[in-house]
Amino acid sequence: MAKKDGGGKRRQASQPALRDVLRVPEGERIDLSAYDARATPAGPADKAAGVAATTALAPRLASLQERLYAASTAGDRRRLLLVLQGMDTSGKGGTVKHVIGLFNPSGCRIHAFKAPTAEERNHPFLWRVTKALPQPGEIGIFDRSHYEDVLIARVRDLVPRPRLDRRYAQINGFEKSLAEDGVTVVKVFLHLSYEEQRTRLLERVDNPEKHWKFSPGDIDERALWPSYQEAYSLALERCTTDEAPWYVVPADRKWYRNWAISKLLLEHLEALDPAYPPGDFDVAECRARLLRT
Amino acid sequence: MAKKDGGGKRRQASQPALRDVLRVPEGERIDLSAYDARATPAGPADKAAGVAATTALAPRLASLQERLYAASTAGDRRRLLLVLQGMDTSGKGGTVKHVIGLFNPSGCRIHAFKAPTAEERNHPFLWRVTKALPQPGEIGIFDRSHYEDVLIARVRDLVPRPRLDRRYAQINGFEKSLAEDGVTVVKVFLHLSYEEQRTRLLERVDNPEKHWKFSPGDIDERALWPSYQEAYSLALERCTTDEAPWYVVPADRKWYRNWAISKLLLEHLEALDPAYPPGDFDVAECRARLLRT
Repeated sequence: MAKKDGGGKRRQASQPALRDVLRVPEGERIDLSAYDARATPAGPADKAAGVAATTALAPRLASLQERLYAASTAGDRRRLLLVLQGMDTSGKGGTVKHVIGLFNPSGCRIHAFKAPTAEERNHPFLWRVTKALPQPGEIGIFDRSHYEDVLIARVRDLVPRPRLDRRYAQINGFEKSLAEDGVTVVKVFLHLSYEEQRTRLLERVDNPEKHWKFSPGDIDERALWPSYQEAYSLALERCTTDEAPWYVVPADRKWYRNWAISKLLLEHLEALDPAYPPGDFDVAECRARLLRT
Repeated sequence: MAKKDGGGKRRQASQPALRDVLRVPEGERIDLSAYDARATPAGPADKAAGVAATTALAPRLASLQERLYAASTAGDRRRLLLVLQGMDTSGKGGTVKHVIGLFNPSGCRIHAFKAPTAEERNHPFLWRVTKALPQPGEIGIFDRSHYEDVLIARVRDLVPRPRLDRRYAQINGFEKSLAEDGVTVVKVFLHLSYEEQRTRLLERVDNPEKHWKFSPGDIDERALWPSYQEAYSLALERCTTDEAPWYVVPADRKWYRNWAISKLLLEHLEALDPAYPPGDFDVAECRARLLRT
């Protein structure tokens, strides 16, 4: 066992962690066009290997999740929050299905954010997000998030510019406070190419079983592609902090996307290294009592 | 395709639906000691066959769930609510992990009910349950439920008896209103034997990785076994209605429990027969617009 762990650590030393490969550099301008959406950085060789590698991660993910949850029952406040952002069809829903599907659903708190309701608009933009946070021991998943308030809000001019510009610092403060409360925030931008989005939207149009996922408004949004890329660049640039960095996951290949996000979650959970809490009861006495029943 | 469906229907005709096998008869006294917790009614021959059969159900479950969700986007209000009840270690958590794990987690709304908080106690007992209901298109899962208010509440004399006795009719009225609003309520009692509970509690005591699941109070609860069996019998008897019958699932064998609940959910989803909604857009026009982008 010790030898195996040692071997694993040696391999890790020669191969950089995926989080270091995909992390957005801090304090630099981001040019998304320089990122190849079909790339597979540090990934398996091909689709078959990628699918197999993702499946192979499942037992470790489930085991770490159970430890995280178990630790919370003894007062450990740590938890993880996966934030998923990306253009339409970039695979937010697919990630929840294929990656979060590897976990025990009882420990996952998933929230898909839609256009805000009248009540939500009457509150500060972080209000509805705060209500959907994971509790200690849980894995929270945001399918869209508070970043919509600097993405569509910027592209569609939904709020006055000074108010919008203040939001980046508000988000950083909010995420810092989450980190201080034990939340590991993993922010993933699913980086899709303009061409791949066309292909995926066409699939929805051409397949009657996918019509419910499509509306002509999706084409209107697509027409704003350059503005969205700009808004994403700004969000990645201004909101990559030590406490909550952004990861750019190339998303044109679904198998790579699933593998990369599974691996990112694994690395973060391994860093937390949650432990089963010791029992606070007398084992021998409980054993004897049970045997008498 | 038609032939295959036809064959399936012929097989169903000769083999009764599991829901008819496990359903509690209406208007009869229930004697739980007459139910064998190790039985495998209408089930696969053994564990290997049971595990394989459960895995084989997964694609149909996932497909029906997607249709149910898709239908809700076009106004279909139907949804399903699985209510899980049973003694400690009867497998409520295991069911969520192994059965609900077969579904897309984004369409599942899981709630584990603990001892009520001060705020919850100040409201009618159905208040907290109402807040946790699934939305249209979702599959809701209650790990414990409003039935605790006629189970532990009866065994531990938590409320005056007249108030307790009124709750059965209140539950029936509540569940009828759910059915009228499109909720298919599937209530499962995980029927565990006294001996098997001892074995499972001993496993928790003997395995340090399971200590977090155990407290000496579990032995105190076990001492009240006959009172709980009586309370369950009354709940099954008084709250089996046309709208929301109880199913007794023998739970000593985990593979049978997982198969039976998967099969029950499948039968209920097949009866709903949700359909992908038709698109409300011009396919040819959207196709042409997309190809121009």
